[in-house]
Amino acid sequence: MKSTFALRSLGVFGGAATLCLLALPAFAQDAAAAPADPYPYILNTFLFLVTGFLVMWMAAGFAMLEAGLVRTKNVSMQCTKNIALYAVAGLMYWVVGYNVMYDGVDGGYIGTLLPKVIPPIDNDPGSYAAASDWFFQMVFCATTASIVSGTLAERIKLWPFLIFTVVLTGFIYPIEGAWKWGAGWLSPGTDDSWIRTFAGADFQDFAGSTIVHSCGGWAALMGALVLGSRYGKYQDGKAIAMPGSSMPLATLGTFILWLGWFGFNGGSQLALGTMADASAVARIFVNTNLAAAAGVVVAMILTQIFYGKVDITMALNGALAGLVSITAEPLAPVPLWSIIIGGIGGVIVVFTVPLLDKLRIDDVVGAIPVHLVAGIWGTIAVPLTNTDATFLAQIVGIASIGVFVSVVSLVLWVILRFTIGLRPTLEDEIAGLDKAEVGVEAYPEFGTGSQRL
Amino acid sequence: MKSTFALRSLGVFGGAATLCLLALPAFAQDAAAAPADPYPYILNTFLFLVTGFLVMWMAAGFAMLEAGLVRTKNVSMQCTKNIALYAVAGLMYWVVGYNVMYDGVDGGYIGTLLPKVIPPIDNDPGSYAAASDWFFQMVFCATTASIVSGTLAERIKLWPFLIFTVVLTGFIYPIEGAWKWGAGWLSPGTDDSWIRTFAGADFQDFAGSTIVHSCGGWAALMGALVLGSRYGKYQDGKAIAMPGSSMPLATLGTFILWLGWFGFNGGSQLALGTMADASAVARIFVNTNLAAAAGVVVAMILTQIFYGKVDITMALNGALAGLVSITAEPLAPVPLWSIIIGGIGGVIVVFTVPLLDKLRIDDVVGAIPVHLVAGIWGTIAVPLTNTDATFLAQIVGIASIGVFVSVVSLVLWVILRFTIGLRPTLEDEIAGLDKAEVGVEAYPEFGTGSQRL
Amino acid sequence: MKSTFALRSLGVFGGAATLCLLALPAFAQDAAAAPADPYPYILNTFLFLVTGFLVMWMAAGFAMLEAGLVRTKNVSMQCTKNIALYAVAGLMYWVVGYNVMYDGVDGGYIGTLLPKVIPPIDNDPGSYAAASDWFFQMVFCATTASIVSGTLAERIKLWPFLIFTVVLTGFIYPIEGAWKWGAGWLSPGTDDSWIRTFAGADFQDFAGSTIVHSCGGWAALMGALVLGSRYGKYQDGKAIAMPGSSMPLATLGTFILWLGWFGFNGGSQLALGTMADASAVARIFVNTNLAAAAGVVVAMILTQIFYGKVDITMALNGALAGLVSITAEPLAPVPLWSIIIGGIGGVIVVFTVPLLDKLRIDDVVGAIPVHLVAGIWGTIAVPLTNTDATFLAQIVGIASIGVFVSVVSLVLWVILRFTIGLRPTLEDEIAGLDKAEVGVEAYPEFGTGSQRL
Repeated sequence: MKSTFALRSLGVFGGAATLCLLALPAFAQDAAAAPADPYPYILNTFLFLVTGFLVMWMAAGFAMLEAGLVRTKNVSMQCTKNIALYAVAGLMYWVVGYNVMYDGVDGGYIGTLLPKVIPPIDNDPGSYAAASDWFFQMVFCATTASIVSGTLAERIKLWPFLIFTVVLTGFIYPIEGAWKWGAGWLSPGTDDSWIRTFAGADFQDFAGSTIVHSCGGWAALMGALVLGSRYGKYQDGKAIAMPGSSMPLATLGTFILWLGWFGFNGGSQLALGTMADASAVARIFVNTNLAAAAGVVVAMILTQIFYGKVDITMALNGALAGLVSITAEPLAPVPLWSIIIGGIGGVIVVFTVPLLDKLRIDDVVGAIPVHLVAGIWGTIAVPLTNTDATFLAQIVGIASIGVFVSVVSLVLWVILRFTIGLRPTLEDEIAGLDKAEVGVEAYPEFGTGSQRL
Repeated sequence: MKSTFALRSLGVFGGAATLCLLALPAFAQDAAAAPADPYPYILNTFLFLVTGFLVMWMAAGFAMLEAGLVRTKNVSMQCTKNIALYAVAGLMYWVVGYNVMYDGVDGGYIGTLLPKVIPPIDNDPGSYAAASDWFFQMVFCATTASIVSGTLAERIKLWPFLIFTVVLTGFIYPIEGAWKWGAGWLSPGTDDSWIRTFAGADFQDFAGSTIVHSCGGWAALMGALVLGSRYGKYQDGKAIAMPGSSMPLATLGTFILWLGWFGFNGGSQLALGTMADASAVARIFVNTNLAAAAGVVVAMILTQIFYGKVDITMALNGALAGLVSITAEPLAPVPLWSIIIGGIGGVIVVFTVPLLDKLRIDDVVGAIPVHLVAGIWGTIAVPLTNTDATFLAQIVGIASIGVFVSVVSLVLWVILRFTIGLRPTLEDEIAGLDKAEVGVEAYPEFGTGSQRL
Repeated sequence: MKSTFALRSLGVFGGAATLCLLALPAFAQDAAAAPADPYPYILNTFLFLVTGFLVMWMAAGFAMLEAGLVRTKNVSMQCTKNIALYAVAGLMYWVVGYNVMYDGVDGGYIGTLLPKVIPPIDNDPGSYAAASDWFFQMVFCATTASIVSGTLAERIKLWPFLIFTVVLTGFIYPIEGAWKWGAGWLSPGTDDSWIRTFAGADFQDFAGSTIVHSCGGWAALMGALVLGSRYGKYQDGKAIAMPGSSMPLATLGTFILWLGWFGFNGGSQLALGTMADASAVARIFVNTNLAAAAGVVVAMILTQIFYGKVDITMALNGALAGLVSITAEPLAPVPLWSIIIGGIGGVIVVFTVPLLDKLRIDDVVGAIPVHLVAGIWGTIAVPLTNTDATFLAQIVGIASIGVFVSVVSLVLWVILRFTIGLRPTLEDEIAGLDKAEVGVEAYPEFGTGSQRL
């Protein structure tokens, strides 16, 4: 039975593949004349590649963060999910995601349902290599999927999670991304557009506080609601602590994400070919770092005040919340504004994590406070420093994307729950998903492992 | 006795060093006139440096992958081997390796046995800084050595392994590398060459599926044959599972390698000074990522079908096999071809790993399937997408390099076995090499460690 | 009481912040006319950003190195300190550090006590984006703080350490840095300066063997003296081994630092806009790698000779000592000189680590041998390869910076000791700082952890 399912998956991939091969000869061969000055093109392309590999590296960051924050019996599973989701995102964003997001959206809601054609060398019409742009956008798509993985840890089966990831990376993220970054209805760039008429400005989200982080956050929240909490998490009205298995791995993951975020925000300038672009990227680096630093310090001080001790997981999540908060507008703020925006991210983490537990929403790694709540905050804060934004336009963007992602995710999670099922058996959950789903313990010689050779 | 050996090593280094100092004044001081446009030179150099540091980072990837896939009692040893081999490669490739590979090969079999001279600033004659080229080529040499380390884990003494590494990085790899990348007999670049007359084309290996990965794989295979399997690995005709100590470290290592591979393949374009170069590097990034992603997905689906569970080590090795497969030709394929080529890499891993166990060849981390078998596959596949390649030329290259590396490695392993010896005592092997050879346990407070302070 | 302290900290930050907001409108808006050729500006800026993110990554390297070299019961604490110090450095270097170091030092001893203003885009007067320069200098400041963290591990409370970090990153490092890199009295750049008259040359420290590494080393040494050794470390006149908890994490940290050092030294060329700059950066990469490699090999051979076994912690510290040694002058040496300079770094580690134990100076991770002693060596060695340096000027620089950093650090450590106190209670130290100070165990399911869920 398991093999039938897998074979069917192969079939679907094969079908899509055939389609793509057929699409290929349609690519036009009219090479543009080389411009006099090749360096903007080269520098723009190289910016995409360098910042793109930094964002790719964030996939490892999420993997380590989550491996450190789950219990030993679920660590292999979490690693498997993270490498698998990066792979799935990479394929789906080629199969359909990129063109859904960018091809002919034209003020509307969705692009085309076709694989991305990577043009031959010397044939790129634009101001950068099309392949570098695809690569950069792909790693953003993968980041969105990474966010979901952590919240749902320790109690979801592998394949339904991956099926959700297929839809998220091929359709959900690309569609809502199209609305802004694909020049869709939230940002068509024309003065007579609905959004400018209604809200006085386009929706602004520089590097994706809403488009990437809230999107992942909403999808995770819906998953958490449909999936329910881990066995034993909430007893007698209070949340039971289930400490993560490895703080150094969680710390490593946070540092990786912090590093990757320079690519995430810096690369979102999308160009390095002029002095103004270079200055902008540099400024983004500075603001990104200041916001994260503020998030750490604020989270540390607050946990010291409220709990009498610094909580390392809060400090780490404070960094991430600071990063998410500044992501919607990492260019316009002066340093002090970046510190304030990121610092408020730290506040959000400290107060939202226990709140979720009160609501009995089981978010294993704190992804909802960090990516959803801080993402909303960062997006709302844009008009504070960017005069091209309005609060109304920001709220329209946050709300419309929130509703779209939530509804579609909810429907999908419910369908998965009532078809192939989301949760392992209680027995498997207690034994740990590593044994049940992956078959390889994370630490066979210690942790829950018993085997010694 | 141990110190005698070490002192002798110092002596050898000292001798080589004296030689190099003498060689230095020979460097000619005729600076080339600065070209009108300095940017191709700068961009080419910077490409070497950026992609070079990514490949250097792969050394950490191998270290983590191997640390995760061996048992706790051999983890310190594996870490020691990996940092040591990177250091040895870095020295040997300067002492003699680079010039063996690139200096005056001229259609032949070997270059010169001299240290590499790094020219003073402002004195580089070519289209990039000579030092950046050396750095980039050096990290490739180190990668070759990394491959050997994993296969032979848990049962080889430190110093014989390092002596092999000295020869591999100073001579074996540079010689066979010279045949292709040094414009040797497999790729002299002239129409009347033997290889073009006989096989219709030069041997093609863009970034080293054969030159780096198969080379390391053959050396590892010969080592495994001479060394034999770990104590207790094969009992009553079947292979006993000896699970790796840390799946998160293995996962981290795989992500590091994936990241580093963008440098490995992308930097092999060797230039960033024109728009065509930039486009090519971008395209290589995309194809590299697609192949790895396909390797993961295929390995996951196949293990689900055949074993009823996804095997995380197969998923990780699937990524690596996808990467090795696309390395011989990451530029020419359209995306779908990259997916197919990398996906077949995933198939190779799933079927070759158990095959090796049937042959009682003990490959601790699966390096032979990943680097040797997938490397051969990737090299053979080049003519499918690159019209400048022929199957015959590919087979000539694979076979000649395979025979050369295998024979020399085999002889060297046998000499080492019958002189200073390769294996620790059975007692030491059972106790773990960390105690016997390194003296520092990897995890003294857990794992096999007993010490608590 | 704890909250009072924290609230007071918030107040201090708030005050500084208000000051900064006021300072902002003072920024002049006179944009310089754009030069004809924008690419030197862009390339210089991009060099700062790329090498800057590599140096930022070193913060993760220190975190992993230290997490691996302390016992499990102090691992969360060490991770907390490392993420916190990076955050604190990032804030303090903006609040005051950068301008103390670079603004109007003018041959003197200190710059201005003002926050750094990041100019708007298109308004950078220099040959690179001011923000990129700030970012690059900030990560150097953070590195200095990282060095202190390791030496003082396992026996210092969190908040006093962070208060020291505030002063170190805001004042101590920026002041002594100003003396050389801010064109202060050690390097005013004029022929009639005191230093040139007295010592025949400016003090030379290319990338900071003294300014960064010795500075951190002196601060750490003073801390170790004031703080005393860990409970049980020295008994009956001999040092008790307290093995680190995870060799793979220590290895990972070393590889991260090695990688980051390409940015540390390479970026210190401060420019990529000419062919000569590109060649220089490339040469620095090569020398940096050779020195580290030599440090590893020498440390391995020496430990083999003296202890009969290779010591992995010595091999790792050998790499770092090689790196520190070449940092004062990574550009001028020919490869063989780099190997010698780095190799002597390896010698230093092997002999200084036991020496410190004889002096009963408890340096948990070996930071004093690596950063202080090798830093002094590297700085003294500069005139061997750089004709613009004199031994006298080097000694003046080393001594003056050493005295300044030591005295100020000593005073500060003593003040902290007799006010809020430096050490946890003996009970807390024995139980481990994770429980007492952070409240989250690093490995709750193994190591000293007992909790299993």
